[in-house]
Order: sequence, then C-alpha cells, then structure tokens
Amino acid sequence: MNFTSDNATGACEAVLAAIQRANAGPAAGYGDDQWCRQAAAMLDDVFEHEVEVFFVVTGTAANSLALATLVEPWEAIVCQDTSHIANDESTGPEFFTGGARLLPVATAAGKMTADDLEDRIRRTGTLVPHNTRLGAFSLTQSNEVGMVYAADEVAALSEIARGHGMRVHMDGARFANAVAATGASPAELTWKAGVDVLCLGATKCGALAAEAVIFFDPALAEGFIHHRKRAGHLLSKSRLFGAQFVGWLENDEWLRLARHANAAADELRGLLTALDHVHAAWQTESNESFFVVPNDTHTALLDAGARYYDWPPTGFGREAGAGETLIRLVTSFATSADEVQRLAATARQHAGQ
Amino acid sequence: MNFTSDNATGACEAVLAAIQRANAGPAAGYGDDQWCRQAAAMLDDVFEHEVEVFFVVTGTAANSLALATLVEPWEAIVCQDTSHIANDESTGPEFFTGGARLLPVATAAGKMTADDLEDRIRRTGTLVPHNTRLGAFSLTQSNEVGMVYAADEVAALSEIARGHGMRVHMDGARFANAVAATGASPAELTWKAGVDVLCLGATKCGALAAEAVIFFDPALAEGFIHHRKRAGHLLSKSRLFGAQFVGWLENDEWLRLARHANAAADELRGLLTALDHVHAAWQTESNESFFVVPNDTHTALLDAGARYYDWPPTGFGREAGAGETLIRLVTSFATSADEVQRLAATARQHAGQ
Amino acid sequence: MNFTSDNATGACEAVLAAIQRANAGPAAGYGDDQWCRQAAAMLDDVFEHEVEVFFVVTGTAANSLALATLVEPWEAIVCQDTSHIANDESTGPEFFTGGARLLPVATAAGKMTADDLEDRIRRTGTLVPHNTRLGAFSLTQSNEVGMVYAADEVAALSEIARGHGMRVHMDGARFANAVAATGASPAELTWKAGVDVLCLGATKCGALAAEAVIFFDPALAEGFIHHRKRAGHLLSKSRLFGAQFVGWLENDEWLRLARHANAAADELRGLLTALDHVHAAWQTESNESFFVVPNDTHTALLDAGARYYDWPPTGFGREAGAGETLIRLVTSFATSADEVQRLAATARQHAGQ
Amino acid sequence: MNFTSDNATGACEAVLAAIQRANAGPAAGYGDDQWCRQAAAMLDDVFEHEVEVFFVVTGTAANSLALATLVEPWEAIVCQDTSHIANDESTGPEFFTGGARLLPVATAAGKMTADDLEDRIRRTGTLVPHNTRLGAFSLTQSNEVGMVYAADEVAALSEIARGHGMRVHMDGARFANAVAATGASPAELTWKAGVDVLCLGATKCGALAAEAVIFFDPALAEGFIHHRKRAGHLLSKSRLFGAQFVGWLENDEWLRLARHANAAADELRGLLTALDHVHAAWQTESNESFFVVPNDTHTALLDAGARYYDWPPTGFGREAGAGETLIRLVTSFATSADEVQRLAATARQHAGQ
Repeated sequence: MNFTSDNATGACEAVLAAIQRANAGPAAGYGDDQWCRQAAAMLDDVFEHEVEVFFVVTGTAANSLALATLVEPWEAIVCQDTSHIANDESTGPEFFTGGARLLPVATAAGKMTADDLEDRIRRTGTLVPHNTRLGAFSLTQSNEVGMVYAADEVAALSEIARGHGMRVHMDGARFANAVAATGASPAELTWKAGVDVLCLGATKCGALAAEAVIFFDPALAEGFIHHRKRAGHLLSKSRLFGAQFVGWLENDEWLRLARHANAAADELRGLLTALDHVHAAWQTESNESFFVVPNDTHTALLDAGARYYDWPPTGFGREAGAGETLIRLVTSFATSADEVQRLAATARQHAGQ
Repeated sequence: MNFTSDNATGACEAVLAAIQRANAGPAAGYGDDQWCRQAAAMLDDVFEHEVEVFFVVTGTAANSLALATLVEPWEAIVCQDTSHIANDESTGPEFFTGGARLLPVATAAGKMTADDLEDRIRRTGTLVPHNTRLGAFSLTQSNEVGMVYAADEVAALSEIARGHGMRVHMDGARFANAVAATGASPAELTWKAGVDVLCLGATKCGALAAEAVIFFDPALAEGFIHHRKRAGHLLSKSRLFGAQFVGWLENDEWLRLARHANAAADELRGLLTALDHVHAAWQTESNESFFVVPNDTHTALLDAGARYYDWPPTGFGREAGAGETLIRLVTSFATSADEVQRLAATARQHAGQ
Repeated sequence: MNFTSDNATGACEAVLAAIQRANAGPAAGYGDDQWCRQAAAMLDDVFEHEVEVFFVVTGTAANSLALATLVEPWEAIVCQDTSHIANDESTGPEFFTGGARLLPVATAAGKMTADDLEDRIRRTGTLVPHNTRLGAFSLTQSNEVGMVYAADEVAALSEIARGHGMRVHMDGARFANAVAATGASPAELTWKAGVDVLCLGATKCGALAAEAVIFFDPALAEGFIHHRKRAGHLLSKSRLFGAQFVGWLENDEWLRLARHANAAADELRGLLTALDHVHAAWQTESNESFFVVPNDTHTALLDAGARYYDWPPTGFGREAGAGETLIRLVTSFATSADEVQRLAATARQHAGQ
Repeated sequence: MNFTSDNATGACEAVLAAIQRANAGPAAGYGDDQWCRQAAAMLDDVFEHEVEVFFVVTGTAANSLALATLVEPWEAIVCQDTSHIANDESTGPEFFTGGARLLPVATAAGKMTADDLEDRIRRTGTLVPHNTRLGAFSLTQSNEVGMVYAADEVAALSEIARGHGMRVHMDGARFANAVAATGASPAELTWKAGVDVLCLGATKCGALAAEAVIFFDPALAEGFIHHRKRAGHLLSKSRLFGAQFVGWLENDEWLRLARHANAAADELRGLLTALDHVHAAWQTESNESFFVVPNDTHTALLDAGARYYDWPPTGFGREAGAGETLIRLVTSFATSADEVQRLAATARQHAGQ
C-alpha cells in the first residue's frame, strides 16, 4: 500500500524494453541518433504540431531549463504558491535563470483563476529597471494538489499572461494524467491554448528518467542547447533516453498508464468519501487525492502498512481541524485494485473510534 | 515643492567639505587610507561596539552584498512584501546571492509583526534539499511606508528569526530617520536588538553616494571583500567615500539632518490631516508620509508645482476609494518650511471641490 | 569499426540486469533506498575508505558539482589546457561555481608535471581581493590524451597544490582505465595520493548513465546535496542509478571491462605503430590512442567504414605535418578483436600510397 | 614621489567644481537629469558619433557590465593575459556575465598582434555546444603595460575578431592617455576602428569616481540598464556623476590632464634610461613606465621616499636578472616636475654601487 508518490514506482515494461532495444550496437552520442529522432517525430504526431524537443532526466531540470530559455535574469515568473517550482526544486529556477524571481500567487480555488492572475499583475510595479519585468507565467497541469485545468481555462490564463508580455510555461510532470482526466487532446491543452513550452514528464508515469522539454515555437528555443550542456544535462548515451519516450508513447502506452493511475484514484476517492469520518479536502481529478482524516484513522492506516505523506495546510479547501490530519494519496500505473481496497477497508474499520 | 524622494536632494555641505579635505595629496587606494579608517572608528563610537565596516555607493549594493555574505544560494530571505529588496532593486538580491530566494510577507499593520513572521515560517517546508532553507530575515528601518520599529519590536522579530537559524539583516537606507524618530540609540536599534548586519545609508540623508555595511560580528563578514570586489564595488579612491561618512557623522550632523527631515514631515502631517478632505493613509513617524487625497486636490497640487509620487495599493491602511489617489510625500534635510506651508496651503484651497 | 568514443557503446549486460532487478516493487525516492546504499558500501570497499558518495548522470555534472562544492566563486581552478573541464563542458564549471575561474596550463609532456604546476602558481598574483585565489587543482586520470599518472605522480602534484591551499579534484571519467593500466589500487591513485574528490565515471565504461562523486573527507562535501538538487541532478528514481553502480562494481566487472578496452587499444597500438607510415603522436596507456597518419590512409580508413575523430594540434608530441592528419582512436569494452584487425589491415593496405 | 598608481591622486579641480555646481537644488534621480544629459551630449561630440552612454563608478563595473551585455554565459572573451579583466578584477567578468569564460592570450610584443589573436582563434574548438563560443574580444588602450595601439592596429585586430563573430570591447581606463599619446582622434581609435563598446575611464585621470560605458551601436546596449540596476550600479544622485564627466570633458580638460601625465612619464623615461644601470623593461608611450633596476637602486629609491610597485615577470621585454628588480612607475595629472627630478636624481646617485 505505497501511496507516497508516483515516483516510488519503477519504470514500466515498455520503457525498459525500449532501452534494451536501443542499447544494441554503437550509436552517435549526445542526441544525434535514431531513437531521439524517432521520439521527436512521435511527439510531433502526439501534439499535431512540429515541435522542438529536448530530453532531460528530471522535472527540475526540465522546468528550470525551459524557464531559463524563456526569461531574462531581471524578469519575474508568476506561478501558483503551491507549485513545484516554488516549493520543491530548491532554488533551481533562480540558479538556471541567472537570478530571475518567482512571484507566487495564493489561490482560493486550489488552481489559478483569471482573477488570481490579473490581481497579481496589477500589484506588480512596472517602473523599469527598478521593478522586475514580468517574463513568464508558469502553470502546472495537472497541478500539485491534484486539480486539472480544462482547455479553456488554460487558454484564458494564457491570454492574460501573453497580453502582459509573458511567455507561458506548463509544468507537465503529470501531463499524462491531465490528458487522461480531461479527454482533451494534447494539442488542445497546450499550443492551441497558448502554451509556449511544455515540460512533459514521463518519469512519474512509467519512465526510468525521461522528461521532454517541448517548444511549440522553435524560435523560443534559442539558447536551450547551451543552457542544457553547461548544466550537465546533455547525456552522452542520449539514445537510451530518447528510447524511453519511444517505448512510452508507442501504442498510447503513456495514456493507458495514466488512465490506470487516475482510475485507481477515482476508486479510492469513491471508497473513502463514502465514509462519514473521511472527507475530501478538495475535489481532485488526477492521480493525487487529499483527505482529511481523524488522527486515529491515520494511525490505523500507517499501522496497517499504508505509506503516504501528511500535508501542510494549503489555505484552501477543507482544513484539518483538531484531531485531524490532511493526507495525500498518490496512485500510479502500478497501483493494484487490491491496494486500494485494503486501504479503504482499513479506513472503514476505524470509523468513529 | 519637491517631495519625490530624499535622493532628489544633493549632498549636504558637511559631506562636500569632507571630500574636499580628503582630496588633497596622494593616498593609498582601495580603502587603505586614513579617511576610511577614521570613518570606521567613528562608527565604532556611534554603535558603542567594535564593528567591521565596508563602504559602497548604493543601497542596492549594500543590501545585496550583505545578504550575499549571510546566505547560501539555496537559502531563503524573509522580508516584508513592500520592502525595497523585494520591489525596487530589480533582481539584485538573486544576482548577488547566486540565486537565493526572497520570501515576501504581506502585513496588515504596515510593518512586520511577530505573528506575521511566525506564520511565514510555519508555512515554509523544511524538507532539505527540496525546500529552500531559511537563511536570513530582512527588516527595513524606518521602513518603506514610513513606519518605525521600536527597539523591542526589532528585538522580538530578531529573536524569532534567530530561533529558526536565520541571520538578521537591517536595511537602514533611512536608519538616521529611525534613530531621530525613536530617540533610541543606534546600538539599541541594532546589535542590542539582535541585528547581525546593518546597511547604514547616508545617501538619502546628505551624502553624495555613501552606504556603510556594518557587521556587528566580524566572523559573519567573511567573504564580503571578495563579493564587493568582483561586483565592481571596491572604489579606487575610497578615501573620498570614507570622507563622506566622516563629514556626515562629525558633530552628529547626520542626526541633525534626519531630525530636520522628520520635523518637516511632522509639520506636513499636522497641516494636512487637519483638512477634512485629506486623510493619512496610515500613521508614519519618519520622513515619509502617505495620504489619500481627492483627485482634484491631487491635480491642484501638481498644477501648483508640487512633485511627488502616487502610490500603488498596499493592502493595509486607508485605501484610496473612487475619485481618490494615494500619494507619498518625502521630506529631506533640505525641505524648507516654506515648501511645506505652500503645499498645505494649496491642498487647503482645494477642499471639497 | 566505431572508434569515435567510448560512449558510442551502450550499457553493459551487468548494468542492465541490475536495473531490472532494482526496478521491482516500490522504493523510496531520491537516493534513500537499498541500491544506493549498497553501491555506497561497495565503493567503501573498493577505495578501502569510508567515502561520502553522490550519484549523478553525466561527467559534466559530476565535475561541476564537485568543483562548486570545493571552491568559492572568487577562486581559481588550475587544470591542464587539454582537460575536459576546460574544453568540452561549455562553461559548466563557471555556471556551477557561481563564476570561479579556470586557469589552464599548457604542458610539454601531455600530462601535468610538478614544474608545470609550480610555474603556473608562480605566475599567479596573490593580491587579495584583486587577484583570484587559488582554490582547486584538477587532474584527469586517465587524461584526455590517453596518458596515465602513476600513483607517485599524483601524489607529487597533490602535495604542491595542497601546499598552496588548493583542494585536489580528480576527473575520473576513465578512472577504470587508469586502474587497469597502472595496476595500482583505487586507494593508491586517490586519497592515498592526496586526492580530495574523485568523479568516478561508469558511463564511458559500461553504465547507462552513472557517475559517482566521491569525497574522501565528508567535511568537504558540505553543500553538495543543495548544489545537486538545485541543478536538477537529484533523480527521483535514484535506485535505478545506484543499481548501475552495483552491477558495474560486482565481481570487479568494471575492471574486466576496462581491461578489455585497454587491451584492445594496446593491440591497436602494436599493429599500427608497426607500420612505417603511421606514427604514434605520443605514448598512451589507456583506451585512447593518437596517431599521425598520411591523409590518404585517413581517407581509406573512412572509406572502409572506420569511424573516429581527427584531432586539433595539442602543442606536444609528434605534430601532423603537411599531408598528414592527427587522429584519435578510442576503444571500449565492446570493441572486438575483429574491429581492431580490420582497421589495422586497412591502414596497412594504404601504406606509402 | 608617489608613483604607485594614477588612482593615488584625488579628483581634479574641474571635476570637483562641476560636482558643486550640479549639487544645487533638487533634481530627478537615476540619471534623468540635465547633467547626465549634458555629459552624454558632450560625448557625442567627442566621438563624432551619436553614442549610447551609461555612467558607473569603477572600471571593474564598466568592463563587466559591458561584457555582460555583449556575450552569452556560454561564450568566451579573448583578451591579453596581462589585462586588467584577467588579473585585477577578481572574477568580476564571470560574475556579471553569468559565467562566460576568459581566454587569455600570452604576447611576445607586450600588446596583442594579429598573429596572437589568429593563433588563439585557431586553437579554440568550435563544436557547439561542447566548446564555448567566441563571444567578445577585449583590448585595453593604453594597455596595462603602458603600450598604446595605433588606430590601424586596433582596426586590424577588430577586423579579425569580427570576422569570427566576436564583439569588440575596449577597456579604456587610460584611454585619455592613449589619445594624448597617439594624437589620433577618439573616433579613429574606437568606432572607426571597429570597436563596439568603449569603457572610458575618468577616474584614473581626474574624476572622483566616474566611468562611461559607451556603445557606438545602441542596439548592442539592450539589457544594459537591467544589468546595471541589479548590480547596484545605478546611482540615485546620478547628476553628481554625470557632472564629473561634464567637468572633465569641458575645454578638453581631460586631454590636458592626460598630456601632463604622459609628459611626466616621458621626462622620467628620458632621465632614467640615460642612466647606465637602469633599463627600460620595454618601450611604453603612456603614463606607465617599467624599468629594470639594480636592487640597491631600488632600495635607495624606497629609502628616499619614492613609492611604486615592483612587478611580476611578464614573459616579454627585458627580464629582471639576479640582483635586479622590475618596477612600475605611474605618473598622473598631479605628478610634479620636482617629483620626477628627485626620483631621477636619487636613481643617478646609486649608479653602480
């Protein structure tokens, strides 16, 4: 019953098999190989658009390199205050951008609204060079608290951001889950909705270590190869990373894996919210779920071997009161029906105690 | 009637005279001269403490160099959201620190309270190395909205910050005004209240360009000389900058100048708040005053030749309603009684129109 | 006949098998897992010393992170002018260190001598803070032109560097080849010879992407985890990278692979230098060999399908004259006897034409 | 007898008088004032070209900000190995450029020749993104060893640099001395000879602290104001720095001062090289002179109160042998005929002892 994170799961079979295939014989290093080229071509198809794509090994690298390519060191990046870039990547964004600034936005809805974004822009000075200049807007899809943006929500936010001269970055560490949850096409959720750069994460959803930084306008990618190289993120045996994307995308494996994870989360949400003593902290649609549980239920779950994180207050949704704990449960492509049932059964047995 | 900023005024006579004196004959460069030594000795006296002091030419340089010496690139700096470092120094703090992060705090009181600080600390993750580590707490005295911290308020904030491993930095661009306003001694407002580093600004209060970065514990200053040199802030003819501090501190000239500026602001506050149609946006005690005025009063002031800035909403105090403008009026050592009277008279004439 | 680089070869069987084994079931992320712990323990054994070890995916990341941990941004790093850090990592060292400076040294011997190092030190100013301070000395073993340092040569250089306050960094992208070539123990070539940090590369010699940054004094590693995280080099599924080291080190597989590569190079050197028209540019002992060949031999080799790089002039050894080309031939654990024989046979057929 | 450096002298009368004049009354801050505008207009005239000019307080800031505006963080800057940027500015160039790399060139002539530059370019790899890209060429005029480039020498070097895609930067900390020495016009020595940016130093030749960064093509200056602001080099009371340039340039005062310094150096060179036991280390034409003197002469000079620096070996010119010392003598606008005569007389008295 491991619900700690989607990256507690290893790589999926399709990805490992692709690595094995790509490993045979010699190949050119640093990305000039057939596997990277094939992965790039497959991404053109997936996004119905000719894209400029670069592979890296972590989400932090993908986000930071993308942002470093989009903004100047004296610019600011508007993002949600619960975002990964603002909380979980140390000062990576500052390091890669040469010192650009994050402007985190608190939300009442758990995801950014047009009002949230406009309010932040209004409160930002525009006296150059004293004030920082708004350089980029960063959105996570699906976001760090399990919420998903519909295509028109992305488009509305992008339009505001672009209207103020910002580039639009999407942290897609769980983009696959968002596609699976919305049913919208990858194109509809990105370039058709005004996204300039998508960091498409495969690692959390089946890869060994593979993230694709996808520029929908090649002109915006200028400088990326230099940023990547000097940051030590250009891999010599790149074919073994391009191959991961080939294995992941082939036959829509990525969506199959994401749907599995989402479905397990749906099942979990159904079972747990049916219990009187367990409450959804807020509505989620992806593979992350947040619940407020009585402390003794929490203890019983841990005693039964369930593994997950408790979560700090977010400022929105149903807060944990006295004697309660806010917990996060993450499912993955490997989460079994049995794990879900056992967790729910354990919680059920500890109702009202 | 120039109330735009204290730096709209040139240098005071005492400072220019000291430069002239120091200019005669040859001298060693880069700070190894009698004037810099004399200024340092005078600061020891002013602060009743042996200090380690470095001279630079701007407040941005002083703050950024001090912070760069205090924090690691993966640490965070807690500050008020209206602070100069968070608004008016581009991304200087990030540049000098190698990418440390600012954590700005909104306040209801217009200045930081213990609750504000503790709340910010509570909401900051501590999972190293994913989360940034709290490295420094920065306080502006007097602050950017004209408020002054009493010595015990500084002490209370410092104690919390130090309790969480943070160093305490004070942006003293208007420290002279704070000393003049509180009547507390420089020592009481700084090291006796837990401040590690003070950036003591002379420029806004009479110098040509002179700021002193004062470390109360020499051990904390390690690395400062390297940061300063590589940032181009070590001046060859340093004696002419050390001399400014000599001229400024001699015979308590600095306090005389600050008292003048504060008194002019007091006079202004008295005259303007006596008018029914003009409202103090919030209480201030230093040389900065903020008023909400009807738009036609605002126009009349500008037409009469008054110069000042209107101000964006701050989230505290009395907000400007429809038909009103929030304005900032700054007095300096050169503000004349006549200027104050003329401004007030102009405002009076446009009451209720 | 691919002699372009050792990274043109994929991962070895032992490494891939270890990844498969480690992939089963859930595991903690970010290095807190049994595989990373096992790899660390195995490295303790290999080096006969308790080491502090961190895993990353590229040699550039390993070198840059190690150097960033060792030096201040105002310090200099002395290295050979043909070194990887000075030529092949873009400005990675500057990026990671926050702007430290490389001081490249030209050599007459093709590898650093005590005289080379002492001369460089003598010509470096020591007027702080104007001049940069000597922070680290970096040595590549085996070096980029195929030469190997004996244990006493490393010790002599380290002693000089340490005597001037420098830390000693070893770029061991081909350290396995150096161990295989010298017969010295890993301990003798590193900490026993004064090396502070070794970047031990597995990628060029059989891993998918795995480099270990090994600190022999844990106190020197302070800050490393922060540098690594903010650079995007902390991998979520770290177990799959720790596992590569397990597979690589088990049963001395790494030395078996390195010996194979070295032996193939020896065979190649023997066959080619027996030809009158082919000349060793200089003596090498590892898996890299450099030859001066007539241009028509060069063309014939390429026509026959041989793949390798021609090389720019180095300033030492036998230079390519008119009608000649300097070429580099790199062998790997996968180089077959047949490839070597065919290359030599092709070169032989084109003698004197 | 102070011959240590031109910055051992204070500011000239004309500069101090201009500061006094500019100090009266209020003025807009941050460069939006009549004095900065007047200084800019005067520079247009001096250079017979509409220039984009920015004022800063140190040569290190001027050079670093100019270079940061010209190059990308993954590019290299070719310069002479004795240059100020490579020796005397700590790691300022790396800090401001975000980690670009210096490529210092050794010279046999004491100043860069076309062959020196072409050889350096030839030895630099061009495999992007592995190798750094050549971004800028930096030339000091007059250079750090007292030599001056004729206009056609500048043009020849610029042409080579531009032909390889480099921008051309001139460190003109002693540009006034070069104009005085060559008799060429400021235009002929800069933009007419292919220079993109000149850092024109007034500090060493009479200012309190004033350097102008002059872009001959405004398009190249993009970003400069942001770099300057975040580095703390935008001064609030900028008028007092613009005024220094007004005072310095008015009535060709700058050239009068430079000619005085050069003439004093000429006199010194004539007197000293007439002595059998004193040797010019190499020919110089500006206000810096280098001599090889017997150690007892050196001691006698110091005993007589002469102040100057001895100098490390440069690798060109006449080297100091056993019992000899290489010394640098710098004259300034304040050097008196009496000082020169006394120094020469002292040296004469200690001939052959």
